[in-house]
Amino acid sequence: MSDDRSRILLETIKRLLRRDASVHLHKIVNKTHAADLAVVFQFTTLREQETLFDLIVSTEQKAVLFSELEQETLLGLIEDMPAEKIAEILEQMPTDDVADLLGKLSDERAKALLDLMTKEGSEEVEGLLVYDAQTAGGIMLPAFIALKEDSTARQAIEALQKEYVDVEMPFYLYVTDDHDNLVGVISLRQLVVVPPETRLKSIMTTDVVSVQTNMDQEEVARIVARYNVLAVPVVDENNKLVGIVTVDDVIDIIRAEATEDILKMAGAGGNLVESQSLFKSARIRLPWLLASWIGGVIAFFIITHFQTSLSKLVYLAAFIPIIMGMGGNIGTQSSTIVVRGLATGQLEMKQIWQVVLKELTVGFLLGFVYGALLGFVAHLRYDLWLLGVTVGLAVMSSMTIAAMVGSLVPMVFARINIDPAVATGPFFTTSIDILSVSFYFWIATLLLHI
Amino acid sequence: MSDDRSRILLETIKRLLRRDASVHLHKIVNKTHAADLAVVFQFTTLREQETLFDLIVSTEQKAVLFSELEQETLLGLIEDMPAEKIAEILEQMPTDDVADLLGKLSDERAKALLDLMTKEGSEEVEGLLVYDAQTAGGIMLPAFIALKEDSTARQAIEALQKEYVDVEMPFYLYVTDDHDNLVGVISLRQLVVVPPETRLKSIMTTDVVSVQTNMDQEEVARIVARYNVLAVPVVDENNKLVGIVTVDDVIDIIRAEATEDILKMAGAGGNLVESQSLFKSARIRLPWLLASWIGGVIAFFIITHFQTSLSKLVYLAAFIPIIMGMGGNIGTQSSTIVVRGLATGQLEMKQIWQVVLKELTVGFLLGFVYGALLGFVAHLRYDLWLLGVTVGLAVMSSMTIAAMVGSLVPMVFARINIDPAVATGPFFTTSIDILSVSFYFWIATLLLHI
Repeated sequence: MSDDRSRILLETIKRLLRRDASVHLHKIVNKTHAADLAVVFQFTTLREQETLFDLIVSTEQKAVLFSELEQETLLGLIEDMPAEKIAEILEQMPTDDVADLLGKLSDERAKALLDLMTKEGSEEVEGLLVYDAQTAGGIMLPAFIALKEDSTARQAIEALQKEYVDVEMPFYLYVTDDHDNLVGVISLRQLVVVPPETRLKSIMTTDVVSVQTNMDQEEVARIVARYNVLAVPVVDENNKLVGIVTVDDVIDIIRAEATEDILKMAGAGGNLVESQSLFKSARIRLPWLLASWIGGVIAFFIITHFQTSLSKLVYLAAFIPIIMGMGGNIGTQSSTIVVRGLATGQLEMKQIWQVVLKELTVGFLLGFVYGALLGFVAHLRYDLWLLGVTVGLAVMSSMTIAAMVGSLVPMVFARINIDPAVATGPFFTTSIDILSVSFYFWIATLLLHI
Repeated sequence: MSDDRSRILLETIKRLLRRDASVHLHKIVNKTHAADLAVVFQFTTLREQETLFDLIVSTEQKAVLFSELEQETLLGLIEDMPAEKIAEILEQMPTDDVADLLGKLSDERAKALLDLMTKEGSEEVEGLLVYDAQTAGGIMLPAFIALKEDSTARQAIEALQKEYVDVEMPFYLYVTDDHDNLVGVISLRQLVVVPPETRLKSIMTTDVVSVQTNMDQEEVARIVARYNVLAVPVVDENNKLVGIVTVDDVIDIIRAEATEDILKMAGAGGNLVESQSLFKSARIRLPWLLASWIGGVIAFFIITHFQTSLSKLVYLAAFIPIIMGMGGNIGTQSSTIVVRGLATGQLEMKQIWQVVLKELTVGFLLGFVYGALLGFVAHLRYDLWLLGVTVGLAVMSSMTIAAMVGSLVPMVFARINIDPAVATGPFFTTSIDILSVSFYFWIATLLLHI
């Protein structure tokens, strides 16, 4: 559905809600795809959401809606819902989505819901809950098609018709040996084009890309993207097949990780806060700005330290914004390029010195260009060539240092397993500000003898 | 393949290249997945790439490698390759990848390659080249499975075995009426579980999500992600089925668009430049910094305008960094949240006033907190409460304005169809710097009567 259609749907539903036109609403809610309803839920109040939700007839539609809703919205919606009603819906949802949701609830609430679910369903969910939510084990579906090497194509198709009716991604059939170890894969397509008596062993691909349960979800996503597969099998430490990660979950991961990186780089938390309440949103952003505030106070004390020099040449103050700005901006460029390069796999950690050296050189080159330009402007304005040299050198050193620090810090963070995206936030730009200002006044006192 | 394995493969190949061990290299190159080779190619010189490429035996392996290589690397590799050799490889590549590549070459070179391809292959590619590369038409595969409503499941499976051997994503079968209009869809899975004589009409899903050829690729990606489908059919203006966009291309789009957004926000161009040459990388980043430089010069002239006031109270200069920094950082938060919200569809353009008002309030609240804190510090340091009020108000106005401008500008850009990510770059932070500094000195002269 295009954005225009989203908008029309949303406006129609809002109008019907205002008019309390429940017959119309009933019709529209039950014939709209749950993914579209999820968009509508994002832009309605909790009260409205509850009205709409109660109009949904089929538990399956409710289950798809649960899977599609933004997490915040879903948590709000189920807060006052009776546990029996929730458990009934969870029963119809993909196991990984249920595990995700339960992981966000209090332990008692999660346990209460699991107790209300059927034994089969709750066992599957509990099987996933043992894994960290951000790993292959935490995002996998425990339902997949696994057949023995000696089965025939006919037997495989029969199994599809009977045993595996509920499997979400039935396009790959995995082949296991007698110890349940993964030994091959066959696509459904291959299966339908071979003679019925063909043994799976003879047509399977043995070079299967698989991942281990403890692999980080970002790396799983990179593998699915790299090999263009629709699902990747997950094996435990004994190479026993335990689940699959499907491409639709990978898309969500890629998108969410990109959002998280972008927001962290801007120092705006890890989740998109715009949909959250005013005070919550302010509270999330407050601590990130504290780094910036403390840094600013430090810069303040550094400058007051040079107050006597400054009072002799008061126009030195006028160059503070440009020296800080040039450093900050090239530093952001460098760190962003490194953070994104690491995230997409286009840069590797072992290239650390090569990358930092290159950034340092780029910073120096661009610093030379813009430093010389500024020096020229300063000389024109005050007819004092030593001032020109001072501000020129200040811009150059600020840009060189910023480019170096901007590339080095995320590389080091990545190496010691801290998310490099954090290294580009206000904390970083503020450090650059302090360094730039210090170098500037240090160069000024030295060259201008003030 | 995990990053560790990537690294081992890369190191092994580099070592063998140094030792000129062509027998070993031959073996390794031909048994490694082309997606892994693509990673190796990213970290080797052109010379080494050519050596490795010449060792590849199968044209199919070469074709997969071409599809997997980063665009820059591929363009470098084929620059000196004979056209006949390239055309032979193009023949084996997915049509959309060929069209992408030819779109990047000069018109003569593209035409020469098309002339060397088989009539069937070149016609398919030319069919795609008429569409804008960033639209559904530009990224679709023209090969899909389309059957008539009255066909039976048995006929469909027979068609799969004969006609549609080359189709890349054979998991959905599209059903068309006599005018080739799309009327339904059946998954391959449904097909194998129904009795062979079942008519497609009776089992197809008629509620098919489809996209038009001219839809922007980002919107296509959103649709595939929202409905969790493996492929979405593309129809022309007459609802005639002309192609499909597959989920693996959607993953690449989502990742590339996120990278583009992130880099644009940092003012570092649209493509990841770290892999590019030093001078090229410096050249791409140079113009973005010009905005920052010009802005800095403007800030310089604004401050010199207040030079007499400044010479009376020289410590006013010491507050410049913190006032600029707080504005810049909250402005980046606001614009990042809005840009990412628009990109993921979590924010809609029609919410413009609601969002801007909220950001303005957040900016005001946080500005009040950090302004009061700074005012307190200033009062402590200089025992001058009017100075405290001045810098407090300056931080507050800077943060409020920055949050408002930071949310308003990308919203307005989106509305007039300019990429909102551009609105968060150095251009934006520099404007905030200028506004912050101006307000600061204006408040200072007003309150401190200097």
